[in-house]
Amino acid sequence: MVIVMKPGASDASIKHVIDYVTENGFQTHLSKGTETTIIGLIGDKSKLNYDNLKIFEGVDKLVQVTESYKLANKKFHPKPSKIKVGNTYIGPDNLTIMAGPCAVENEDQMMIVAEAVKKAGATIIRGGAYKPRTSPYSFQGLGEEGLKYMKEASEATGLATISEVISLESVNAAAKYVDMLQIGARNMQNFYLLKEVGRTGLPVLLKRGLSSTIDEWLNAAEYIISEGNPNVVLCERGIRTFETATRNTLDISAVPVLKERTHLPVVVDPSHATGVRSYVTPLAKSAIAAGADGLMIEVHNDPAKALSDGAQSLTFEQFENLTKEIRPYAELSKRTF
Amino acid sequence: MVIVMKPGASDASIKHVIDYVTENGFQTHLSKGTETTIIGLIGDKSKLNYDNLKIFEGVDKLVQVTESYKLANKKFHPKPSKIKVGNTYIGPDNLTIMAGPCAVENEDQMMIVAEAVKKAGATIIRGGAYKPRTSPYSFQGLGEEGLKYMKEASEATGLATISEVISLESVNAAAKYVDMLQIGARNMQNFYLLKEVGRTGLPVLLKRGLSSTIDEWLNAAEYIISEGNPNVVLCERGIRTFETATRNTLDISAVPVLKERTHLPVVVDPSHATGVRSYVTPLAKSAIAAGADGLMIEVHNDPAKALSDGAQSLTFEQFENLTKEIRPYAELSKRTF
Amino acid sequence: MVIVMKPGASDASIKHVIDYVTENGFQTHLSKGTETTIIGLIGDKSKLNYDNLKIFEGVDKLVQVTESYKLANKKFHPKPSKIKVGNTYIGPDNLTIMAGPCAVENEDQMMIVAEAVKKAGATIIRGGAYKPRTSPYSFQGLGEEGLKYMKEASEATGLATISEVISLESVNAAAKYVDMLQIGARNMQNFYLLKEVGRTGLPVLLKRGLSSTIDEWLNAAEYIISEGNPNVVLCERGIRTFETATRNTLDISAVPVLKERTHLPVVVDPSHATGVRSYVTPLAKSAIAAGADGLMIEVHNDPAKALSDGAQSLTFEQFENLTKEIRPYAELSKRTF
Amino acid sequence: MVIVMKPGASDASIKHVIDYVTENGFQTHLSKGTETTIIGLIGDKSKLNYDNLKIFEGVDKLVQVTESYKLANKKFHPKPSKIKVGNTYIGPDNLTIMAGPCAVENEDQMMIVAEAVKKAGATIIRGGAYKPRTSPYSFQGLGEEGLKYMKEASEATGLATISEVISLESVNAAAKYVDMLQIGARNMQNFYLLKEVGRTGLPVLLKRGLSSTIDEWLNAAEYIISEGNPNVVLCERGIRTFETATRNTLDISAVPVLKERTHLPVVVDPSHATGVRSYVTPLAKSAIAAGADGLMIEVHNDPAKALSDGAQSLTFEQFENLTKEIRPYAELSKRTF
Repeated sequence: MVIVMKPGASDASIKHVIDYVTENGFQTHLSKGTETTIIGLIGDKSKLNYDNLKIFEGVDKLVQVTESYKLANKKFHPKPSKIKVGNTYIGPDNLTIMAGPCAVENEDQMMIVAEAVKKAGATIIRGGAYKPRTSPYSFQGLGEEGLKYMKEASEATGLATISEVISLESVNAAAKYVDMLQIGARNMQNFYLLKEVGRTGLPVLLKRGLSSTIDEWLNAAEYIISEGNPNVVLCERGIRTFETATRNTLDISAVPVLKERTHLPVVVDPSHATGVRSYVTPLAKSAIAAGADGLMIEVHNDPAKALSDGAQSLTFEQFENLTKEIRPYAELSKRTF
Repeated sequence: MVIVMKPGASDASIKHVIDYVTENGFQTHLSKGTETTIIGLIGDKSKLNYDNLKIFEGVDKLVQVTESYKLANKKFHPKPSKIKVGNTYIGPDNLTIMAGPCAVENEDQMMIVAEAVKKAGATIIRGGAYKPRTSPYSFQGLGEEGLKYMKEASEATGLATISEVISLESVNAAAKYVDMLQIGARNMQNFYLLKEVGRTGLPVLLKRGLSSTIDEWLNAAEYIISEGNPNVVLCERGIRTFETATRNTLDISAVPVLKERTHLPVVVDPSHATGVRSYVTPLAKSAIAAGADGLMIEVHNDPAKALSDGAQSLTFEQFENLTKEIRPYAELSKRTF
Repeated sequence: MVIVMKPGASDASIKHVIDYVTENGFQTHLSKGTETTIIGLIGDKSKLNYDNLKIFEGVDKLVQVTESYKLANKKFHPKPSKIKVGNTYIGPDNLTIMAGPCAVENEDQMMIVAEAVKKAGATIIRGGAYKPRTSPYSFQGLGEEGLKYMKEASEATGLATISEVISLESVNAAAKYVDMLQIGARNMQNFYLLKEVGRTGLPVLLKRGLSSTIDEWLNAAEYIISEGNPNVVLCERGIRTFETATRNTLDISAVPVLKERTHLPVVVDPSHATGVRSYVTPLAKSAIAAGADGLMIEVHNDPAKALSDGAQSLTFEQFENLTKEIRPYAELSKRTF
Repeated sequence: MVIVMKPGASDASIKHVIDYVTENGFQTHLSKGTETTIIGLIGDKSKLNYDNLKIFEGVDKLVQVTESYKLANKKFHPKPSKIKVGNTYIGPDNLTIMAGPCAVENEDQMMIVAEAVKKAGATIIRGGAYKPRTSPYSFQGLGEEGLKYMKEASEATGLATISEVISLESVNAAAKYVDMLQIGARNMQNFYLLKEVGRTGLPVLLKRGLSSTIDEWLNAAEYIISEGNPNVVLCERGIRTFETATRNTLDISAVPVLKERTHLPVVVDPSHATGVRSYVTPLAKSAIAAGADGLMIEVHNDPAKALSDGAQSLTFEQFENLTKEIRPYAELSKRTF
């Protein structure tokens, strides 16, 4: 942490700042230039609510020198993580394909979809049992019953499973049936929930919030890891911008940025990012080319009758074509699936 | 709901759409122009997952004619709501001032702050006992103990109290001690939590999500009201944009927009919106001039030592000046405080 | 300028940075902490393309200590500017109302509108003769003919006039007929045009770009002033965000932020900011309460027949009501109009 | 164009709308449902300033059925365009690499860079002679002298050339020396300039505005084409969002969206999109995988000494590695370079 004083800050105001941080257990390092004075802080920042320093007289800015996330930080853990999920893992030499319907609708559906996506190359089946919906009048999911159908589909096919959780109750239910928990975009900063999934020890897919910076996202991952659960996978699913041609704007740059900052795997969800079926395949290729460790794709046995997000779901045939088309891109990235 | 077909859509594709919606219990009204064909739907839309229609051949757009929120909608409830909170209420002829520290820090502090803000004109004291913080290493709040301090401060001063909830556990605790529950921006679409606060029947302050549209916000209010709790107050606290001169961008237009669309009261939080102390007073005036029913202001006995958000907190003296300065604006709006 | 080195940057990389900036005519001030090393630069930054330093080995960040705009900066010119426009001026104790149609349509119209807006309290009439329109097939303005109509209206009423310029040709034409030139949002960073209006010496209304930061805006003002023309007035007209309830999002906080950073007057245009007639009056009040020096309002003799932007234009009666309603707010701000 | 009336709109207000549009030369097609009434318009919309209809009593929304751009529209020109530039072309089976420094700095530099980028596979050399810079105190370019150096470099190597124009004067100068004109992001809606480059008939690279929607971008292209110049190439270079890890947010989805809506070629500029050297290569691959027709890459002989944008420029060696790494991606897209 570096405190930049305003040009012309008085000696008294400099002394006031130094006294305050010294009282709070920091050592300081003073650098007086002709233009400005800079005070470097040495010590454990977690003890200081340094933001308050902004209102001290003469203080111009605070410059953070180190990131606030530690356990998710590549600096302290340079080797890319490999996260085991059921019989498979997400990590550096795999291209993990997670596929399935937005919402679990019934027993047959999960079985049919599981078989179809497995055949095309997916290793994890997705399906929502607890659905966060903008309107209270939309379909809210089957709850625990949906999770059971996922488990059956998993047992029949050997696929690993992932499902979204939205509350302690759903975490407890999901932990009994599925291999990986998903935190949705709307809950990325539901810190209470992050701690709960942290406590389960199960692998967690942490979707990026609609308007979350990469820095906030890594801090959210830190919440999970700091509960003793290092099994976090990040999922870029589009951010909110002014553009309306797509539902969200896929921030493809987040992939190389994350590869520089964290050891955690990164997957991309082009279905939610765009909300439009015809953009899913080009963006899936694009994500692999940018360095993604996997993809999450919505696939439905009958998109026109899907209870949610049908417009962005692929049919089995479309999904099979996608996996065929992306295979050479996976090879260029030296990843197998 | 109106379905606009693409120019040149075939008769077969028009028929396919009509058959589908008819099967789902709708009547249709067909309008064939030279340029395009339009299909109007008559019936209960909540039964149809109409978004899927986008992938039907020949469909160009879906146009919503009616809003998805009903209970929060001014069309069906033209009279502005008046929400009772403790001994006071939020609504058309009041200007409600909620003030207090970002986080409850100790017993003495709450008492001192309560007395000071009461003296200056506040009728509700705020204070966070469960704090959602970006980093897991920041101060997370005192929990139930903090709520007790609030209750004591309330008993001593007669002020009503408000505190943020973040989980079922905190809802249950808060319901025992405070008069109004707050849903923070990060939890605006935590639908599980919305239902829980809905069930308490207590008045709820629903802060706008960082990147939530006004429409999504009103749908979030609908979640609470549809649990049988009509006591919802909306709080504009800034949205996320590209501008960095302020922490967020206060969307002042949201006030007149909401006054047109909903009967629920609207308060503005200039402290969180800007994150800068010197902008709080001009924006407080601005909010009243735009039609706000109240203000939420961060006030701290010693901002430099605040455990969170000190940089945006006012001292007692600054807060007293603020209430003096806004009084003539309240009068112009024919509101008392 | 302060260069923050990465934790653990080698002595060689520190030396490399120091040698480079020294060669470029700077003195340095080195501060070695245990956590990090900081290099302060002393000298004329305009000689150094310092951004390049980011790719020097070991460099973590560059921190700007001083703003890049000087002539627009309040630090060097603490007294608020007063800008003369025709017979009136824009500045600290005036509330300037600029009103008129989006586009000049014909001679009669300008005369009728000028009389009506003068009667209601406006001192400057606006009207576009060169219209930047999103589609090439929309009405593009009357050009020089339109400017003549403005001059006639000005001579008949004594109102000052303002019109938008979009090219050297239009600058030359406008300089002959109107009292103030307007740079539209889409041209805020058309630096060539900024220099041209700078050279005229005429007062300039500089609208904020749709996605321009306040810092970029002040740098755009600097382009005009650095040509020897200090007569710049800033106009907040909404920024682009994800919200669609209003055409743009009025950044009301920009008013107090600018009041802190610059001596230039600030006016607000609620008509373009919202695009909706019913929001214009509440936001006009709001702008005055926030500290604005004036308003720009679209008024049309027959909005339903306006050749552009009719939906946001006020009728004469609505405009008269607006000026009546804002008068007490102007008084609270100790401004006259 | 479809006019959706509010639920319960009176017969009088419906008649008023119909009368108005009939007077303006339209035929109407009325559709009365139980929920709402819809009025379809048949006729030449360019004759009607339909936006005004929003303020007619009883009108709820206007729904555009057809796009406002025609010449840029794929519907009327389904075959992808092939744009000749010097000895090369941009279009469906080529992967065009444009490379070179942000700004032309001197004669030797252009020659050295031209040879290096040609060797690595570029077919067009870029270089700015007229630089739009945020601050008036930054380097503004060499002007016509810089264009001459580009021409010399072109004659020596056979590379085609591209340079940015910012005014009529610079258009006239550039037309004498270079093969392709560039409109920068800040000038995307400088409609005056768009018409001027349209009149030259030269190929134009139209960069996307920082906060322009894809629809506005295609309308800007329409300005150029409607002057009789169909040689327009679109360049995605990042949009402005809240994320600060990259300078802008590369909107990779724009590539497939544009491929669906227009016949014009699309290139991607990962250098300006991110502002960070290490992200250029992964995003270059990503752009090709998404379907881009080419890349624009900043390359400098000595980035640390570049007069502008050094931090995002590649060295010759880095650029050569980039072209090697992207070659297999070009092959997968069946493009040659």
